[in-house]
Amino acid sequence: MAELSLNRARSIIRKALAKGREEGFKPLSVVVLDTGGHVKAFEREDGAAPGRFGIAQGKAYGAIMLGMAGRAQMARAEQQAYFMAAVNGVYGGQVVPVPGGVLVRDQRGNIMGAVGVTGDTSDNDVIAAVAGIEAVGLTPEE
Amino acid sequence: MAELSLNRARSIIRKALAKGREEGFKPLSVVVLDTGGHVKAFEREDGAAPGRFGIAQGKAYGAIMLGMAGRAQMARAEQQAYFMAAVNGVYGGQVVPVPGGVLVRDQRGNIMGAVGVTGDTSDNDVIAAVAGIEAVGLTPEE
Amino acid sequence: MAELSLNRARSIIRKALAKGREEGFKPLSVVVLDTGGHVKAFEREDGAAPGRFGIAQGKAYGAIMLGMAGRAQMARAEQQAYFMAAVNGVYGGQVVPVPGGVLVRDQRGNIMGAVGVTGDTSDNDVIAAVAGIEAVGLTPEE
Amino acid sequence: MAELSLNRARSIIRKALAKGREEGFKPLSVVVLDTGGHVKAFEREDGAAPGRFGIAQGKAYGAIMLGMAGRAQMARAEQQAYFMAAVNGVYGGQVVPVPGGVLVRDQRGNIMGAVGVTGDTSDNDVIAAVAGIEAVGLTPEE
Repeated sequence: MAELSLNRARSIIRKALAKGREEGFKPLSVVVLDTGGHVKAFEREDGAAPGRFGIAQGKAYGAIMLGMAGRAQMARAEQQAYFMAAVNGVYGGQVVPVPGGVLVRDQRGNIMGAVGVTGDTSDNDVIAAVAGIEAVGLTPEE
Repeated sequence: MAELSLNRARSIIRKALAKGREEGFKPLSVVVLDTGGHVKAFEREDGAAPGRFGIAQGKAYGAIMLGMAGRAQMARAEQQAYFMAAVNGVYGGQVVPVPGGVLVRDQRGNIMGAVGVTGDTSDNDVIAAVAGIEAVGLTPEE
Repeated sequence: MAELSLNRARSIIRKALAKGREEGFKPLSVVVLDTGGHVKAFEREDGAAPGRFGIAQGKAYGAIMLGMAGRAQMARAEQQAYFMAAVNGVYGGQVVPVPGGVLVRDQRGNIMGAVGVTGDTSDNDVIAAVAGIEAVGLTPEE
Repeated sequence: MAELSLNRARSIIRKALAKGREEGFKPLSVVVLDTGGHVKAFEREDGAAPGRFGIAQGKAYGAIMLGMAGRAQMARAEQQAYFMAAVNGVYGGQVVPVPGGVLVRDQRGNIMGAVGVTGDTSDNDVIAAVAGIEAVGLTPEE
């Protein structure tokens, strides 16, 4: 299983932030996690609220730990709220089950990490994450 | 009160994983807990998400701590979500109240431990757990 | 970076336990963690105390998170106790900085995971871990 | 109170990492925190252990929360280990009281944030942090 290099993680973050500026989104925060859910790189734009690291990380962390992207987590939370609440307990309160936690897959479909974006609406957060991941030639799973 | 031996715990795990392969389930993770809720043995199949230990353990741990298998816990969570949330707080966030946490009983009905399975749908997780427990001549309570 | 397969993790555990029986060690518990510090497989021998999972995991977890095996962690703890106490806080109390947390490296020196053994003296725990790792053709770092 | 912009935080990280490469240090991880102790930016070099975010953050977080850089925290820990242990409890286990947590001050002496570096010896971590801070025309307090 290949890990994302720091160079690629940086490019993902830059492109995600550039997409946000281009679309006129609010200030974004973007994290890249490795295949074990550990932080590889993070940036928070000027004007974003101070607590955004935790939200970005929580979106990406749940995606890695469950192997399930943010949209699927949200669907599960809407069907069975107590299940996602319990999962959150298991993972120490570090899971934010909404869109914006996006899995990064290579050409063979292997998970290489996850990107978490927060700052605008969840759907806009996804747009920024996807732009970043596609810019480095990898495949996003929203 | 008889405890499950390591040999029996291993057999349960192997048979549960074999059942999963036979049925074409997604990669599974299987834990066996003793009568005190402590881990006896665990295996996570290649391709399963990294965080699956916590989910498997959470399913089996609630079964032991409450003496109530996963299906009964889910029923309670659906009736009274705040009760299961409170239970989760009491047990340090380590309870996942859905099917796949299966009690193991001997011929007299004594609890000998619990099995937790995660990776496919909750109902398929139960099928794998039951196959493992029955293969060693014990009685599952789903 | 290659991950340990479940087959290899099983072999490591079996050989580590066999080494313990051969040497007349007390009942052992052995965990194998992946490169992100997540549990791949675990077994606790009959007669081992119920809480041994946490100790085995704590030895291997610190090795992964810091990239530093148990003997090096112990040396640091003896020089600067408050540093290892602080590290433990950072990692949620999940680090046990003594011998028995052994890094698993491939031929090129890349970390493939870690093994944690507990049950006998720390030095004997290391002997069992090393036997398991060498039996699958990999290189232990104690 | 002026905050570090994302541009400046990026420059600090790049220069700190460049200094590490130039000096032949082991792979480094560098975090920049704002005046509230919240993460502004972070990068972990390829080859660094997965848990390095927590150590980098812990070094910088203590510096901000106490208004006391890493060397002063270490001196205090060596005199009164129980005091720093208590401080660690107060701040949720997020303080690592060793060199490598460096305050960032402007020309008037106001704190603008903190930098945390980890990966090589504590003294080398400081060298990298100082290089990063000075490169953007600000004043490090080690």
